[in-house]
Amino acid sequence: MEETVKEVISVHAIAHSQHPENAEVMSRIHQLQKKLDEQALDVYLCHDPANIFYLSNFANFVHERPFVLLIPRSGRPTFIVPTLELEHVKSRVVIDLDYADYREFPATIGDNWYDRMADHIQEHHRVGVESQCPLSVCRALARTAIQSDIVDELRMTKSDFEIQRIQYCCDLLSLGHNTLMEMASPGQLPLLIHKDVSSQLMQKLLLENPTVNLLNSKFNAVTQVGALSDDPHNFREVFATLEEGGPNVSIVQGLANGYGAELERTFFINSIPEAARKPFDAMLEARELAYDLLRPGQSMADLDRQVNQRLSELGYSDNLLHRTGHSFGVTDHEGPFLADGYEREIKANMIFSIEPGIYVPGLGGFRFSDTVLITDKGYRKMTEAPESLEQLIVTD
Amino acid sequence: MEETVKEVISVHAIAHSQHPENAEVMSRIHQLQKKLDEQALDVYLCHDPANIFYLSNFANFVHERPFVLLIPRSGRPTFIVPTLELEHVKSRVVIDLDYADYREFPATIGDNWYDRMADHIQEHHRVGVESQCPLSVCRALARTAIQSDIVDELRMTKSDFEIQRIQYCCDLLSLGHNTLMEMASPGQLPLLIHKDVSSQLMQKLLLENPTVNLLNSKFNAVTQVGALSDDPHNFREVFATLEEGGPNVSIVQGLANGYGAELERTFFINSIPEAARKPFDAMLEARELAYDLLRPGQSMADLDRQVNQRLSELGYSDNLLHRTGHSFGVTDHEGPFLADGYEREIKANMIFSIEPGIYVPGLGGFRFSDTVLITDKGYRKMTEAPESLEQLIVTD
Repeated sequence: MEETVKEVISVHAIAHSQHPENAEVMSRIHQLQKKLDEQALDVYLCHDPANIFYLSNFANFVHERPFVLLIPRSGRPTFIVPTLELEHVKSRVVIDLDYADYREFPATIGDNWYDRMADHIQEHHRVGVESQCPLSVCRALARTAIQSDIVDELRMTKSDFEIQRIQYCCDLLSLGHNTLMEMASPGQLPLLIHKDVSSQLMQKLLLENPTVNLLNSKFNAVTQVGALSDDPHNFREVFATLEEGGPNVSIVQGLANGYGAELERTFFINSIPEAARKPFDAMLEARELAYDLLRPGQSMADLDRQVNQRLSELGYSDNLLHRTGHSFGVTDHEGPFLADGYEREIKANMIFSIEPGIYVPGLGGFRFSDTVLITDKGYRKMTEAPESLEQLIVTD
Repeated sequence: MEETVKEVISVHAIAHSQHPENAEVMSRIHQLQKKLDEQALDVYLCHDPANIFYLSNFANFVHERPFVLLIPRSGRPTFIVPTLELEHVKSRVVIDLDYADYREFPATIGDNWYDRMADHIQEHHRVGVESQCPLSVCRALARTAIQSDIVDELRMTKSDFEIQRIQYCCDLLSLGHNTLMEMASPGQLPLLIHKDVSSQLMQKLLLENPTVNLLNSKFNAVTQVGALSDDPHNFREVFATLEEGGPNVSIVQGLANGYGAELERTFFINSIPEAARKPFDAMLEARELAYDLLRPGQSMADLDRQVNQRLSELGYSDNLLHRTGHSFGVTDHEGPFLADGYEREIKANMIFSIEPGIYVPGLGGFRFSDTVLITDKGYRKMTEAPESLEQLIVTD
C-alpha cells in the first residue's frame, strides 16, 4: 500500500546535515558490539571500505595499502591505517577511536600492517570477518577467521539519518532524470546527456554540501538506446545516438556524499513501435504486482517468485535477466535482495529498487526502477519520474 | 642510466591498437598455465577484476554478482558470469573460453554462482587463488585454497602491447599536465582545472579509440594547494584556491582504455617562498639518486633504503610518508613496489613511478612522479613535464 507523504515520517523535516553525528555512528558501533556479544566474538575485523565508512564516516580512494577497523566486543575501536593517510583519516572520522599507523606497504619486518593488527588481537580472541574479507587478511590473523556479515546485516535497515541522506540523493536523481528526458531527441548522443546531467548534479551537490566527500560521490546518467537496451549492462556502444521510437532505457544513479540511489525509466521518442506496447504493459503489470506485495512481513523470495510468475504468464519467461530489486545505502548496489532463493522478510526502514524487467532480443529492454522506502504500513517512493506511457513518449 | 628514445624499442612504431589481440592474451594464459604446472596446481581461480581483465579483456563495473574465471593447467578456461552479463561479456573477451552462466545473485538451490563453480572443479583438484580472493569465494570451494599470486606476478613485467598502451596513457597525461599548468593562476579553483583536464583527455581518448571501454577509463587532474599539500592524500578541501607562491602539487593520473599511469609535479605561482627552496632541492636530489640506481638487477628494497637515507642525511627523516614508487599496468596503482622491506630485483620491462616525497607540516609537499619504463640498460621516462625549478615557477 502506497502511503502519502503525510502518513510517514517527514524525512525532509530532519535537519539537513551533510555528515553523520557522533551519536549516529556510535549507535551503529553499539549495535555491532551487541551482536558480537550474542555471537561470542571478541573482535570484528572490517576491511570492506563501505563497512569502514558506515562505522567511522571515513572514505577515500582504495589502494593496496590495507585499512583495517577492529571493533572489540566492548570499548574503543582501533583503526589501522598507513601513516601516509593518518591526518586526513582523522579529519573525517566522527567517533572516538584509537589509531595504529604503519610505515608503508610493504614495509620492513615489524613495521607492516599485519604487525599492527597482531598488536591488537590476542591469542584467545575469536575474530569475526566479512564474507568479502581478502584471504591474505584472514591468513594474517594466524587463526581461523569466523565469517559473519554483522555489519552488512546492520546496514539493511536504515536510520532516520540514512533515510534523509538517501532521500537527498533521490531528489538529485529525480532532477537529473528530468534533465535527461528534456535532452532526449533524435540524433542526440547519450554521452552528452551523461556529461551534462552528471555535471549538473555534481555542481548542486557541491554547492549544497561545502564539506562534501568527493571520493564518495558520483553520478551516472546513462541512456541505452533502442534495440541495444535488450542487453541491460552493455555500456559499450558509446557513439550510438537516440532515434525516433524506442524503447530507450534511462539510468540515473549515483552516490551523493556517500549515500546511493537509482531512478530508471523506459521511454520513447515521438512514437511507440507497436511491438513495444505489449512488453511495456507487461512490465508495468509486474511492477504493480511488486508494489502490491511490498510491505513489512512479506518474504523477499516470494515477492520475486510472484513477479516472475506473472511475467511468465504474460509470455515473457524467456526474457527475464534479473531479480526484482536490490537495496542501497552507503553503496549504490547492495543487499538485501528481492530475489527468488533469498528467504528473508521485508522490514520497515529497508530501502529497495523495484525494477522487474523484460528484455526482448532485437526489440529492446523494458524496465522502470525507483528507490523505495518500506514504511510501517507499506512503502513510499523516494524517486520521482513520469510513470505513464503518455508521459514517457517524449516529443522533440 | 637514462636512455634516449632511439636506443629503446620504439613503442610508437607498434601499430596503434585499442585492444589486445587473441595472441597477446593467449600468451598470458600460457604463461599462467606454465606456472600452474610448476606449482602443481590444477586450476587457478581469478576473482580480482584487474586479473580477469588481464586474462580476457573483459572489464565492466563491479557489483555483488561474482565473476569467476577458472584457468585449468591445460585446456580452455571457463568464465562463470551472471546470465544478465553474458552477451556483453562475450563481446569483449578476445580468447576462446567456455561460459557457465548462473541465474542471479542470490538464486534458488542449484542455480547459484558457486554451483557453476562446483561443476568445473573436481574433488582432487588443487586450486590456486589470489591473496585478494574474498573469504566467501574460498569457502565456496569446499577445500583449502592455495594462495598464490601468479597473475599478479605475471603482470609485473610488461609486453610490447602493454608498454604501447601505457605509453598512450602517458601521452594523454603529459598533455593534460600541460593544460593544468597553463590554467594555474592565483584565485583559480583546482576543481575547475580537474573538470577541464579530465574532459579534454576523455574526449581525446574517445575520438581516438571509438571502441573504448569507458568502464575502464578515467582521468583525474588534482592540484593540492600550498600548505595543504603536506597531507598528500587529503582531497577534502574542494574549494581551496591556488594562490601566489606554493608549493602546489599537481597529480594527473588515470586509466586509458584499461591501462594506467601518472604524472606529478611540485610547482609555484609567480615566485617561490624562501623556505621552499631547500626541501625542493632535497627532493630533486633524492629523485636523481633514484634514477641513478634505476636499472635491471637493482634491488627494489635497496633503492628505497638509499633514497630514504639520502633524504634523512639532508634533514628530512621526519618528513617521509611513503616509498619511492609503485607500478602500473591494468590498474593505476599496483606492485611491484620500490619499498624498503620488498626484497625483489628490478627487471627490464617493468614500469615504476619514481616519486620520493618530502612533507613539511605548515609548508607543504614536495614530490615529482613520472611513469618510467625499465629498459635493458637503464630506464626511459614515459611521461613528460617540466623538471627544473625555473620551468615550475609559472607566471599568470
